[in-house]
Amino acid sequence: MDKQRQFDKELGELKKKLLHMATVAEAMIDQVIGELVNRDERLAEHVPELEDELNRLQIEIDELTLTLLATQQPVAIDLRFILAASKINSELERIGDLAINITENVHVLAQQPELKPLLDIPRMADLARHMVRESIEAFVRDDVLRAQAVIMSDDEVDALKDQVFRELLTYMMSDPRTIERALALVLIARHIERIADHATNIAQDVIYMIQGRDVRHPRTPKERPPGQGI
Amino acid sequence: MDKQRQFDKELGELKKKLLHMATVAEAMIDQVIGELVNRDERLAEHVPELEDELNRLQIEIDELTLTLLATQQPVAIDLRFILAASKINSELERIGDLAINITENVHVLAQQPELKPLLDIPRMADLARHMVRESIEAFVRDDVLRAQAVIMSDDEVDALKDQVFRELLTYMMSDPRTIERALALVLIARHIERIADHATNIAQDVIYMIQGRDVRHPRTPKERPPGQGI
Repeated sequence: MDKQRQFDKELGELKKKLLHMATVAEAMIDQVIGELVNRDERLAEHVPELEDELNRLQIEIDELTLTLLATQQPVAIDLRFILAASKINSELERIGDLAINITENVHVLAQQPELKPLLDIPRMADLARHMVRESIEAFVRDDVLRAQAVIMSDDEVDALKDQVFRELLTYMMSDPRTIERALALVLIARHIERIADHATNIAQDVIYMIQGRDVRHPRTPKERPPGQGI
Repeated sequence: MDKQRQFDKELGELKKKLLHMATVAEAMIDQVIGELVNRDERLAEHVPELEDELNRLQIEIDELTLTLLATQQPVAIDLRFILAASKINSELERIGDLAINITENVHVLAQQPELKPLLDIPRMADLARHMVRESIEAFVRDDVLRAQAVIMSDDEVDALKDQVFRELLTYMMSDPRTIERALALVLIARHIERIADHATNIAQDVIYMIQGRDVRHPRTPKERPPGQGI
């Protein structure tokens, strides 16, 4: 096999591993939110194994990018692709960490009666999970439009989080017995929002990779929604 | 100038820029906590400019690492150094984002009477800021021991956060009028904890760079402290 074909094969391997990582991260989100909504801890019993797998993949991808850089000495778009892969790798691993953080709050809730049926938090989680998937699809397909759509979705997640915060604050104010549970839900909403932020980071890395244009710090910062600020 | 000397000069430039970034991030933490503790918003009036500077530095460092990889095609320790620099760059930028998140909660508090004099939160912030500084010093000096000390400090920050959470929960439970302020303080403590996490990530990257050994996912995961879990 000539050098170029070997290189292409290794890039393909890198894409495959990142897609796999995204699938694992999505499954973690799904399962912890499943446990939260259905109050059934069996639904998330495999999450620790998924975290192990995510960590293993992270190390493998780090090794692979290092090897590719050292042996192939890529330039231009190939170099940007590998650097993007290395950053996306870290983002996905952190998404897994956030899923683990969510489980801790879910366990607090499991020990107490249900506060209310949850609607907005599962919707936030669905959106965030979709953003993770789409950001990685944008990466492996060089798809700028898809990456831009991910960045747009982030506003929706933020708006939902503000709504959740306001509602939970009302609960806490009107009945102190709800405080501990409401606080756990606030933190879960915060973790989901951060998962969406990581997907947004990935989408921005993809656009930078394709266009060589930095979209991380736009000249006109977007207006913050007039949320609670808490 | 021969190629090696040119390369060394550029690596020196990279170190200098990262040290500068760390200084800016530390100043941001200092100023937002200064505003929080002294209830004086003038103390944080330059934070938006510091954030702009951090973002500008992030882009410059990204360009510099890209150029170094493309033109010098480094291997072994030099390659690991440049990849570590690229990751540390992202970590420092996010520390700046967290400082900005803190200001939003500080503004909520500024509009209401003081809940209590703050002791543990400023202590957490001091620790986190010190961890940021030490992790970057470990990087520029190739100092494994210093990096390990940073990782150890993270437990102390986590313990303080648990203590802060427990205390604030007590406030909320006993007087609903404190809920909004206590919640803002909970989120501030959470942001500071995450700053310490980013410093820990940097320290782990430094150890990986020097020893080529992955300390991010130890075989025996450290026990989680028996905190509230919220």
